[in-house]
Amino acid sequence: MRQEVDQGTNLDISFDIGAMPVIFTGEGRLLLVDQRLLPEKEELVDASDFDTMCRAIVDMVVRGAPSIGVAASFGLSLKARDLSEECDSVEVFIERLDRARKTIQETRPTAVNLMWETDRVFELAIRLSGDAGRTPAAIAGALVELSLSTLAEHIEINRRLSEYGKEIVRQGARVITHCNAGSLAACGWGTALGVIRSAHFDGRNPRVLVDETRPRNQGARLTMYELTRDGIPCTLICDSMAGHLMKSGEVDLVITGADRIARNGDSANKIGTYSLAVLASHHKIPFYIAAPLSTFDRNLARGDEIPIEHRSPSEVTSIDGHPNTVAGAEALNPAFDVTPADLIAGIICEAGILRPPYLDSIEAALDS
Amino acid sequence: MRQEVDQGTNLDISFDIGAMPVIFTGEGRLLLVDQRLLPEKEELVDASDFDTMCRAIVDMVVRGAPSIGVAASFGLSLKARDLSEECDSVEVFIERLDRARKTIQETRPTAVNLMWETDRVFELAIRLSGDAGRTPAAIAGALVELSLSTLAEHIEINRRLSEYGKEIVRQGARVITHCNAGSLAACGWGTALGVIRSAHFDGRNPRVLVDETRPRNQGARLTMYELTRDGIPCTLICDSMAGHLMKSGEVDLVITGADRIARNGDSANKIGTYSLAVLASHHKIPFYIAAPLSTFDRNLARGDEIPIEHRSPSEVTSIDGHPNTVAGAEALNPAFDVTPADLIAGIICEAGILRPPYLDSIEAALDS
Repeated sequence: MRQEVDQGTNLDISFDIGAMPVIFTGEGRLLLVDQRLLPEKEELVDASDFDTMCRAIVDMVVRGAPSIGVAASFGLSLKARDLSEECDSVEVFIERLDRARKTIQETRPTAVNLMWETDRVFELAIRLSGDAGRTPAAIAGALVELSLSTLAEHIEINRRLSEYGKEIVRQGARVITHCNAGSLAACGWGTALGVIRSAHFDGRNPRVLVDETRPRNQGARLTMYELTRDGIPCTLICDSMAGHLMKSGEVDLVITGADRIARNGDSANKIGTYSLAVLASHHKIPFYIAAPLSTFDRNLARGDEIPIEHRSPSEVTSIDGHPNTVAGAEALNPAFDVTPADLIAGIICEAGILRPPYLDSIEAALDS
Repeated sequence: MRQEVDQGTNLDISFDIGAMPVIFTGEGRLLLVDQRLLPEKEELVDASDFDTMCRAIVDMVVRGAPSIGVAASFGLSLKARDLSEECDSVEVFIERLDRARKTIQETRPTAVNLMWETDRVFELAIRLSGDAGRTPAAIAGALVELSLSTLAEHIEINRRLSEYGKEIVRQGARVITHCNAGSLAACGWGTALGVIRSAHFDGRNPRVLVDETRPRNQGARLTMYELTRDGIPCTLICDSMAGHLMKSGEVDLVITGADRIARNGDSANKIGTYSLAVLASHHKIPFYIAAPLSTFDRNLARGDEIPIEHRSPSEVTSIDGHPNTVAGAEALNPAFDVTPADLIAGIICEAGILRPPYLDSIEAALDS
């Protein structure tokens, strides 16, 4: 994965970006790392085609709220490029782009970054379409530029929030994280894993306990992959072991990412995060969320308004395609849960570490 | 698995025993259902040979604290039968039997039933060896009879505790259980699953949410198998989903088995049980343990004295033999955790439902 790929002219990447999940090539192609195949195989999927990109988001070729946001931004701007070749009229172009926006926004319901980033692309298109003489091709070109700067922005945001966040990691801290909130999830340095990474490179020597994260095993497959790649000490555990380890005094801190955060601080994240937060609270261990501001949803007052995606039961009844239970078994597969704000010690974002009362600190951060 | 097997002359089994994990044939062979292969394959392993039996316990061909106890009882009494053919002297016979007892007791450290049942066999041997004229063959015959009655006793105990326990299952209750505490684990009706089974056949219509139970998936593989076989409504979930479902108001009750219970009520059970108990407490949902009196350890004052078995990290780093993470990854694999008594609403055993303060109620039950 360390192959040299031209990241586009707008990017100034002077640090090791880790495992970059979304790559825009010099020839204008959009490649995704197929995260379903890691760590066994490092394969790239060409998702320059809009339908392929939508499918890739549904099937979790690309996953992690910020990475989905960036991928979808490119998905829509490249769709605009395709449309510009078919549409002479700016009105028709905008109308068809709006339809594409709705299609891609329906691929996954929980992560709000998907909506945020695709709305940004569409709003720029609307604004530019107001200028007399702008052709669809010119608008599409500007949208691709926006996606490129979104990608660059994400890397910068990750770095910034990680710098703030590393302060909570004391020397030698034993940290539990859940799912993958690293480069692969956040297009760059990482959010929860970015904080751990920055603490590591700052000499704080964190040791990471990595929740396997059933049913799709993103912890085992992706987080272990990223941490091992960076030489950060890490140990895989089953999701069910966290309580026992906390009780045994082997955990100092919990940090996870988030897929959507309501105005009051309630945070949706990968299923199992809420259990971790309750367990941390029971053991008086601080529980932190790390997420960019694009994860906050101003439209939602509280976490119980966040739509929870229910994925196929087959993800639970089988493991790697092999049945794991009796034939025809019923299963539940909520992909996310919501952690209430009162269990969260702080929310680390590019504006700093937000503290309770979150209604005030989140509003201030979003307005900053 | 409904094949007719002669259970031995001492058994009067007039009810459906479910999936019987330990079978003593009319020809004096000891067969184990290979629980590692369920639900795909229903295969029997001949464990009449002592070394095979020890290996079968270590490798979890047979698992579940009471089933391990019964299997080990047969393991030791059949070893006595073999020894009786080699030893003319009762002293040598007893000495070699004692060595075998120690060997089999070392196969797994946490479940106390293994110690309890094999000590019972050995103590009977000692007692009988005091009678002048008893040959090793005669002693061995009595030991095999003891193992047979232990098996029958387990079925009876399971039925009795399940009758007491069903009272806690109100009409239509949605019950979470963890791991497998059914026929396969408890040699007969089951403990936690026995309670659910009795409630079901009593018309209480429980619906069971079955924790997958990583890393060995006993919930997905064994509990789903048993419940489906009996037509009890059941839904598979990942271990990480319990908290979310409790918060969503979809859980009324939690019941699990136990592998060892200290005098104060602290209970060791499959890893993940403690997390469930903390989550249940947080959501004010009653958490019960169901276990026979042979699971109680009079010698232990508190749960932190219970030895916790650490199994191979490879159980966590691979799934069904396929690697699930990066090569060479570190992993932890504590097989059990301890739930403190103050999180347990009641302990269901064949003497009734024990309530706090457990120091008194457990002592009374053990003395009854």
